[in-house]
Amino acid sequence: MRIYDIIKKKRDGHSLSKEEIDFFVKGYTVGDIPDYQMSALLMAVFLRGMTHEETVALTMAMARSGETVDLSAVDGPKADKHSTGGVGDKTTLIVAPIVAACGVKVAKMSGKGLGHTGGTVDKLESIEGYKTSISRERFIEIANKVGLSVIGQSGNLAPADKKIYALRDVTATVESLPLIVSSIMSKKIAVGADCIALDVKAGSGSFCKTREEAANLAKELVAVGKGAGKSVCALITDMDIPLGYAIGNSLEVIEALEVLSGGGPRDLQEVSLALAASMLQLALKNSYEACLAVAQEAIRSGKAKERLLAMVKEHGGRTDILANIGLFPRAAYTTEIRSAQEGYITHMNTESLGVASLLLGAGRIKKEDSIDYLAGITLCKKTGDYVRQGDVLAILHASDPVKFREAQATFIHALDFGTCRPVPAPLIIDRIC
Amino acid sequence: MRIYDIIKKKRDGHSLSKEEIDFFVKGYTVGDIPDYQMSALLMAVFLRGMTHEETVALTMAMARSGETVDLSAVDGPKADKHSTGGVGDKTTLIVAPIVAACGVKVAKMSGKGLGHTGGTVDKLESIEGYKTSISRERFIEIANKVGLSVIGQSGNLAPADKKIYALRDVTATVESLPLIVSSIMSKKIAVGADCIALDVKAGSGSFCKTREEAANLAKELVAVGKGAGKSVCALITDMDIPLGYAIGNSLEVIEALEVLSGGGPRDLQEVSLALAASMLQLALKNSYEACLAVAQEAIRSGKAKERLLAMVKEHGGRTDILANIGLFPRAAYTTEIRSAQEGYITHMNTESLGVASLLLGAGRIKKEDSIDYLAGITLCKKTGDYVRQGDVLAILHASDPVKFREAQATFIHALDFGTCRPVPAPLIIDRIC
Repeated sequence: MRIYDIIKKKRDGHSLSKEEIDFFVKGYTVGDIPDYQMSALLMAVFLRGMTHEETVALTMAMARSGETVDLSAVDGPKADKHSTGGVGDKTTLIVAPIVAACGVKVAKMSGKGLGHTGGTVDKLESIEGYKTSISRERFIEIANKVGLSVIGQSGNLAPADKKIYALRDVTATVESLPLIVSSIMSKKIAVGADCIALDVKAGSGSFCKTREEAANLAKELVAVGKGAGKSVCALITDMDIPLGYAIGNSLEVIEALEVLSGGGPRDLQEVSLALAASMLQLALKNSYEACLAVAQEAIRSGKAKERLLAMVKEHGGRTDILANIGLFPRAAYTTEIRSAQEGYITHMNTESLGVASLLLGAGRIKKEDSIDYLAGITLCKKTGDYVRQGDVLAILHASDPVKFREAQATFIHALDFGTCRPVPAPLIIDRIC
Repeated sequence: MRIYDIIKKKRDGHSLSKEEIDFFVKGYTVGDIPDYQMSALLMAVFLRGMTHEETVALTMAMARSGETVDLSAVDGPKADKHSTGGVGDKTTLIVAPIVAACGVKVAKMSGKGLGHTGGTVDKLESIEGYKTSISRERFIEIANKVGLSVIGQSGNLAPADKKIYALRDVTATVESLPLIVSSIMSKKIAVGADCIALDVKAGSGSFCKTREEAANLAKELVAVGKGAGKSVCALITDMDIPLGYAIGNSLEVIEALEVLSGGGPRDLQEVSLALAASMLQLALKNSYEACLAVAQEAIRSGKAKERLLAMVKEHGGRTDILANIGLFPRAAYTTEIRSAQEGYITHMNTESLGVASLLLGAGRIKKEDSIDYLAGITLCKKTGDYVRQGDVLAILHASDPVKFREAQATFIHALDFGTCRPVPAPLIIDRIC
């Protein structure tokens, strides 16, 4: 088998066999196939596409390109979730404890944030003492003991994906459905869970800007996950507006605790419960409605919050600041953004709000950048709200007040005002099973 | 300007500006743009195409990527020719002396052969003593003195083409019309002549297997040449059968001398005269018919042959073996291939005949390979001829008789026999001006 012939075959619009896909994934991972041949192949895949069978084969080849995590030592049913990333998306902190409280284990590896979307690992690390790097044995032990453990991605998981993604990033071959799907699903499959609920975000704060793109991605993710032998479902949720009111790591932990305490923003409650119900449905095979009721009860009874605190304790994190949220560290400086205009907020460019938070220090542009866990934004008004001149739109939080200026300008530019109240968009746009 | 944006633009099917094309050609030539980005761009060009304007811009950028040859010191009108390559194609050895004898100078740089087609430089080097590497000053001096000089390509001509071609060769991006056209025309433009006659070959011995492909290539070559400010025309000629009867370097020199002496094969005479007439027409602006008559007269009078001998003398080559062709060196071993079948030869896979000649030692597979100038094939029968069992089909020439076996098998497989005489194909399929 020669890589030249594989490039030519895809260039001419033909489907590649499982063997051909295995060959180029292995060959590229070990370095036998040089970057310049791989990038020609990636462009051919971008422009010619891949069939469902090819995408499944690519996903499996990438999932098996390095270490895999064996969760068979975790007792009972296990579920995982994945979000395509959004602004203010702190659902894992809420969903995982709910699911664990309902008897389904969550042994989850999460990524660090890059660009305008935060990562669950960063949020957990904003809890003083919480260790996201622990041994595999301890990970399994915690999952068995308290029902959940969330750690950072470690080891040589799906190295083919890392290498291919880095090449796509510099050769304009990122936005290709089969390449996106295989990248997401290969990592999920490498880390072991059999039941996976996907949260595919649609809107200005997300990778998929339109509902149609999100629906296409969700369908293909579910189909490829099933093709790989997993139980998978996807929610398509609105990310044309931040989820909840808090953006930034410790601010989001605080808001997640509010939801686990039975309060917090409605939209965050709704998406979290829908995701928890979806995971429970996949793992327990009960009806969605029954699972939703069980999830609501886990919040109401306080059992979900109890699970989160138990996990944080096992991971070495301070639980006193979670039990008494008033103790949670806050940024040294805050400033208010007041409206110069009057009218309805008709749209928020949610990606720009993420960028404003990043400018305050809450995110990273490069992998090596450090994060200020206390930085971020508390929104006071969102799309659909009526605003008078001088009303506080948001509070910015930072450890260095120099950062306020640029973030403020970015924030203001992200908002559109109008005289008519915009039609509220549905939060959960679709469910694909 | 960023290469990423240029890749993305071409990927999405948009036309690149002259500035963008200059940017990536320069950037790749100097090494600022890595192979992996260039190969992604080349695949995007392959699948999305280029407009005529883009192809002209690419050609000019490549032509100017290194040294260029200034022929202004050669007096009077000057013309050049280029063939897309075929088997038995020795026309330069005939055409250049004819044109020079008619008062149009030919200061020509030729390539070495690679694969199944021979190069003019190799044919000239089969004349003992002939130097194809001489100084630029001496090249101009000979062209002025005897009307023609043919040397090897030297110096840093169109380095962008060399580098891009090497990358195309390993990334399945060779067979792209804009990339082929810019590769051919950039080199022709870098070496200076204003009038260029192209011989685009069509058939089994050529790069273009069909007449349609050849016509598309010829049209685009002429259009791009004109777009670059040159006088250009193209002949589309048949290469579904070898040109003449001799394949191999010294055998082809001998056959060329036969044509210059007024004899030789009819097909070789016809294509050579048509090319000479085309070059004369471009340079002198006379009618094609008048130019053809002048060219025929140059052979009849012996003036063309005299020009060839004068050039060979100036280049240090032995002219005695050209004046008395019986003295020309011949291979130490020959063997006859006799037919096991009876019937008409209905088709010759001409590429395979080239490969058979290469197996005898007449060609090179890699650039570094050395050539046996004496090796080759003398055809005794061609497509359309009636053959009886035991008739000699060809004579193989080699310096090592071990090479006969494989070459013989390849030769035999290249021939198809049938009971009906095939319809003779036109030799000159079209002229595009």
